[in-house]
Amino acid sequence: MGTNRRKFLQRLTIGGGILATGLPAIAGDLATSDEEIERSSQWEKSRQRFNMCGYAAPKIPTVKVAIIGLGMRGSDAVGRLGYIDGLEIVALCDKYPDRVEKAQLTLEKRGRPKARAYSGEDGWKALCENSDADLVYNVTPWHLHAPICLYAMKNGKHVATEVNAGLSIDQCWELVETSEKTKKHCMMLENCCYDFFELLTLNMARNGLFGELVHGEGAYIHDLSKDWLFNKKAYADMWRLKENYQRNGNLYPTHGLGPIAQCLDINRGDKMDHLVSMSTNDFTLGNMANEMAAKDPFFNEFTGKPYRGNMNTSIIRTSKGKTIMLQHDVSTLRPYSRLHTLSGTKGIAQKYPGPEKIAFGHSWIKKEELDELYKKYTPPIVKHIGEIAKEVGGHGGMDFIMDWRLIDCLRNGLPLDQDVYDAAAWSSIIPLSERSVAKKSRTVDIPDFTRGAWKTNKPVDLTLNGGATTNVRKVQK
Amino acid sequence: MGTNRRKFLQRLTIGGGILATGLPAIAGDLATSDEEIERSSQWEKSRQRFNMCGYAAPKIPTVKVAIIGLGMRGSDAVGRLGYIDGLEIVALCDKYPDRVEKAQLTLEKRGRPKARAYSGEDGWKALCENSDADLVYNVTPWHLHAPICLYAMKNGKHVATEVNAGLSIDQCWELVETSEKTKKHCMMLENCCYDFFELLTLNMARNGLFGELVHGEGAYIHDLSKDWLFNKKAYADMWRLKENYQRNGNLYPTHGLGPIAQCLDINRGDKMDHLVSMSTNDFTLGNMANEMAAKDPFFNEFTGKPYRGNMNTSIIRTSKGKTIMLQHDVSTLRPYSRLHTLSGTKGIAQKYPGPEKIAFGHSWIKKEELDELYKKYTPPIVKHIGEIAKEVGGHGGMDFIMDWRLIDCLRNGLPLDQDVYDAAAWSSIIPLSERSVAKKSRTVDIPDFTRGAWKTNKPVDLTLNGGATTNVRKVQK
Repeated sequence: MGTNRRKFLQRLTIGGGILATGLPAIAGDLATSDEEIERSSQWEKSRQRFNMCGYAAPKIPTVKVAIIGLGMRGSDAVGRLGYIDGLEIVALCDKYPDRVEKAQLTLEKRGRPKARAYSGEDGWKALCENSDADLVYNVTPWHLHAPICLYAMKNGKHVATEVNAGLSIDQCWELVETSEKTKKHCMMLENCCYDFFELLTLNMARNGLFGELVHGEGAYIHDLSKDWLFNKKAYADMWRLKENYQRNGNLYPTHGLGPIAQCLDINRGDKMDHLVSMSTNDFTLGNMANEMAAKDPFFNEFTGKPYRGNMNTSIIRTSKGKTIMLQHDVSTLRPYSRLHTLSGTKGIAQKYPGPEKIAFGHSWIKKEELDELYKKYTPPIVKHIGEIAKEVGGHGGMDFIMDWRLIDCLRNGLPLDQDVYDAAAWSSIIPLSERSVAKKSRTVDIPDFTRGAWKTNKPVDLTLNGGATTNVRKVQK
Repeated sequence: MGTNRRKFLQRLTIGGGILATGLPAIAGDLATSDEEIERSSQWEKSRQRFNMCGYAAPKIPTVKVAIIGLGMRGSDAVGRLGYIDGLEIVALCDKYPDRVEKAQLTLEKRGRPKARAYSGEDGWKALCENSDADLVYNVTPWHLHAPICLYAMKNGKHVATEVNAGLSIDQCWELVETSEKTKKHCMMLENCCYDFFELLTLNMARNGLFGELVHGEGAYIHDLSKDWLFNKKAYADMWRLKENYQRNGNLYPTHGLGPIAQCLDINRGDKMDHLVSMSTNDFTLGNMANEMAAKDPFFNEFTGKPYRGNMNTSIIRTSKGKTIMLQHDVSTLRPYSRLHTLSGTKGIAQKYPGPEKIAFGHSWIKKEELDELYKKYTPPIVKHIGEIAKEVGGHGGMDFIMDWRLIDCLRNGLPLDQDVYDAAAWSSIIPLSERSVAKKSRTVDIPDFTRGAWKTNKPVDLTLNGGATTNVRKVQK
């Protein structure tokens, strides 16, 4: 390795390291900087170390799992994973020890032994260093995702992380480099890729029913303002509310983008090339902070903050000339939507606003015709595990389909459905949309985290070939 | 007037004049140029001659109407206007004389005398010069809209024009200048502003039911490809298909934008500030041209053309920090949509995909509740003329509501609902989106055609005060 490349890599690691730890300090300071863009273009020019797309890690007949982060989402994960045979939950970790104790009770309920407990600010580090876990399951606040993923892989563990995988372009590249170097999976737990209509339409797209896909739409429109962001009991240390004044862009793109990206074979035949992003002003969160503070001084520190615009709209263009429209709004009063619109030369699907819709012409098909499509194009994974998943629950079943598939792939040495390139590319929309918004919606290039491999990478496997050997315990009512 | 200003205005008139006549020559040559942007910024800096927003022209008890353009849309207009009392149709004009003859028969059916006939390439000029019409009703192909509007106003006539009003920024400014100078109305016939759900939501927005509006969405998604664009009998000389390879952007923004702009008080309290726009590649029209040409050599000249991308998505930001997402797709197989989404701090409305939806929380209200809203918030114009309009027809009635309102305003000397600033601003999205698309979605500023008057201009009047004196003849079945 030449001196220049070594120096360059050193610089990158330092740059990434700084951003990879700790909380952001100053509002508006987080949009991707020119220096970061320059580092990213250097990364793109360098060679891929090893292609993690389609990578089959050695089989792990019994997967030892460590779960970090036991808030609302993490404690649900303990309950779900507890149903899956062929795994042991060997470690539990949270900043707050009482949450670990509560999760131990869930293990007991599932007839499983106690796991080794970790807690405190740096509990996750001790876990990564000391546990013999094969897989770290990361369910922490956003700013800890990338640091924990990196530390887990560096300590020889596969990692699955709640969305997002990284909040900066530096972090996304560090994930890619580390996964390639360690040959450890870094999968983002993008559960919406496993929802029923999303999987139906992925399989239909694969079978050419929409013709050539031209345009997709995804969203995370979910009014979290009153019941979640300003709820003292919801997110530890109010971290999610803080994110909403520290960043202005699409903070949560992957639920909408992931399923669309899979249908468009992003990173596996096509790639995202550039984007533009625009935010409205804030018309609700600032006012709500004032109202809350008037009743409870706890909220004083949340007044006078530069809250992100209520609605962010971004448009992404792919290298093959398709577009993806993405929206993000968690603070106006409206029904939930992830859109999930797929428009092709021969047809269209749209999930939200419900009911689910499909057309192969100028009218939506009837309910009975949709039922027929479900019968014909429901992919094997849903046929195999869908009904059990509905019993287990977790966003209607999709969470459990995802968990089961992850464990089944690890046990059978199959490539995962989402690799580190998906994690990086989908997550990169956060800092890139911020950059575009900060610069009056300027066009921003999207890095090719596959460094050219997208041209030959194979699409997500929709068969269960070589797998489906993992059993599920009887669901407790 | 100083020498500089005189020179500047002279230069503008020349520039505008060149672009105002004749067909575009070269594909891709039509996106707004840097020089045009510079001319526009000079216009913005100059002073408004006269504020046409809210302008009440002298009453015209019997409005003499001349209709130019008697294709599909124009001949329908003859039929509709024929029902309205208090007007005389004094002149009919089309390039093709047989169409004029056909329209005369429609007049006869309505019990009206024959109109003076004009035809040939320059028939519209002769009409503008010679007819004593008070109002020119312009239903010609897109590229003739602005030239006819300008010529009509210069010849002392009010003008109402089919969408768009202008295809270039130069044309838009020339319309504004000419309307202000002649004190003649230049109204765009944006019929979708008069559709029932659109008027309901405008009245609801005015009454604060959505709180502060934050974000709006409009679209023209209508698969015209097979049945219309490639139909030899649909558009004279295939003009609409030609537009689809001469321009790449949002060619038809006003049906989606108009109603949203009225709800957001654009040009009347807020204004559109800048936009970004992105198009997909073309995946259908080029192939269709090849298929058609294989069967019929007439279509040979339409092969190998740089057809515009199927889907164009644009995002507009207003001076008050709201956003408008606009889409345009006339060439993929999918159901019709204009979206019409209005999202505010207290609620949301969305028309497409149907059924019409409104929410004031996390769930859409029930059909019965929507019926109640219709009862309570249907504005006076719909109560007055809505049922008759449905009988007359024309896109379900909205065309007739628009026609009746236009004539009633002229007869009673009321300001029109759409003025030249609306016509210019809404139409400007065409060339500006083209410019953005041509420059990899670069941010493009939107001119303030009101030259500052938007800050004090009053919103569209939703009462019928001073009007509603115009009768309608018995509708023939």
